[in-house]
Amino acid sequence: MKKSIDYSLYLVTDRPLSLGRSLMEVMEKAAAGGTTIVQLREKECDSRTFVELARAAKKLLDAKGVPLIINDRADIALAVGAAGLHIGQTDMPYQDARRIMGPEAIVGLSVENRDQVKEAASLDADYLGVGPIFATQTKPDAAPAIGLEGLAEIRTITKTPLIAIGSVNLSNAAEVIRAGADGLAVVSAICSQPDIEQASRNLAAAIQKARQ
Amino acid sequence: MKKSIDYSLYLVTDRPLSLGRSLMEVMEKAAAGGTTIVQLREKECDSRTFVELARAAKKLLDAKGVPLIINDRADIALAVGAAGLHIGQTDMPYQDARRIMGPEAIVGLSVENRDQVKEAASLDADYLGVGPIFATQTKPDAAPAIGLEGLAEIRTITKTPLIAIGSVNLSNAAEVIRAGADGLAVVSAICSQPDIEQASRNLAAAIQKARQ
Repeated sequence: MKKSIDYSLYLVTDRPLSLGRSLMEVMEKAAAGGTTIVQLREKECDSRTFVELARAAKKLLDAKGVPLIINDRADIALAVGAAGLHIGQTDMPYQDARRIMGPEAIVGLSVENRDQVKEAASLDADYLGVGPIFATQTKPDAAPAIGLEGLAEIRTITKTPLIAIGSVNLSNAAEVIRAGADGLAVVSAICSQPDIEQASRNLAAAIQKARQ
Repeated sequence: MKKSIDYSLYLVTDRPLSLGRSLMEVMEKAAAGGTTIVQLREKECDSRTFVELARAAKKLLDAKGVPLIINDRADIALAVGAAGLHIGQTDMPYQDARRIMGPEAIVGLSVENRDQVKEAASLDADYLGVGPIFATQTKPDAAPAIGLEGLAEIRTITKTPLIAIGSVNLSNAAEVIRAGADGLAVVSAICSQPDIEQASRNLAAAIQKARQ
């Protein structure tokens, strides 16, 4: 049986947005501050570099009990024994990804609207990354924002864990959780903060408070 | 036991260099003209597109008995059930690639000099892609040309099948084979020819003649 995963505070890495700090420093401090799961996203580097980063990330996060998810590349996830894979709508089809990764792996899927959530109903995705919730600058090719109302509506049509992404930060964390998210996916709200550990701690506390 | 592969005429695809013809047209005509193996190389497209191209390529080439090799991406190779994977020196390490692909898959490795051939001696690569033999414009980041003498020297230090790449074409095919190559890898010498089938036929004939 699959291990239960805490999706509460889901960091998506972004080296260019990390204010010159190394990926390892960002992940270490994020985990120390309460980040519960990390997605390694690398869109520009070659496969050799991606494997090396992923292997180092796995080692660091394993020691902290934080699962590592790889963005897009099932081969990298398999090479380093990552906990799972995250795929978007322009990545490998879900069925292919699941077959390659195996039944025990976490496989998460990005959905950008209600129709994609309905399509995902026939799949066995472990979670859905829903967004953008708010308009975002991190991802220039992002779909239109779905808003808190959109998230709340999606919550009514699926029982799959929902991880909200897209300009989610400390100022809106509570309302995103209350709208139905099981977890918050953040990029700059952790990567780009001067004190990464404290930023994680504040987000984790806001999530916990909003659930009470 | 692994199937014996005919590496004689190894097409590496390049859509931008295909004079506006589709990948499927290029592969179909190349196979009709005697291309014995095809490597699908896609460096720019997203994973969804890569999977779709690879799946279509697999179907087309299976019908002609021509094995399909995927460049760099083991996940794409696994998704479509390709015959194998080709990796370069900046792709996934060979040991990771072999573990992911399994013992039955073809895994080929690019080597650019004598030292890399020696390093490869401890691996069980199915073939080595050696080059560039001649200076090339197809791959702007290519290593220095090793020449026919370099190829001949490499032939003396390994029994692994050698596939020569780098400005290999009809005018030099015979001398490259006689220098010790088991096969010729070509890009523009097939993709960029007005008559792809005839270009393949001429290359295949030149290879056969040089072996006599």
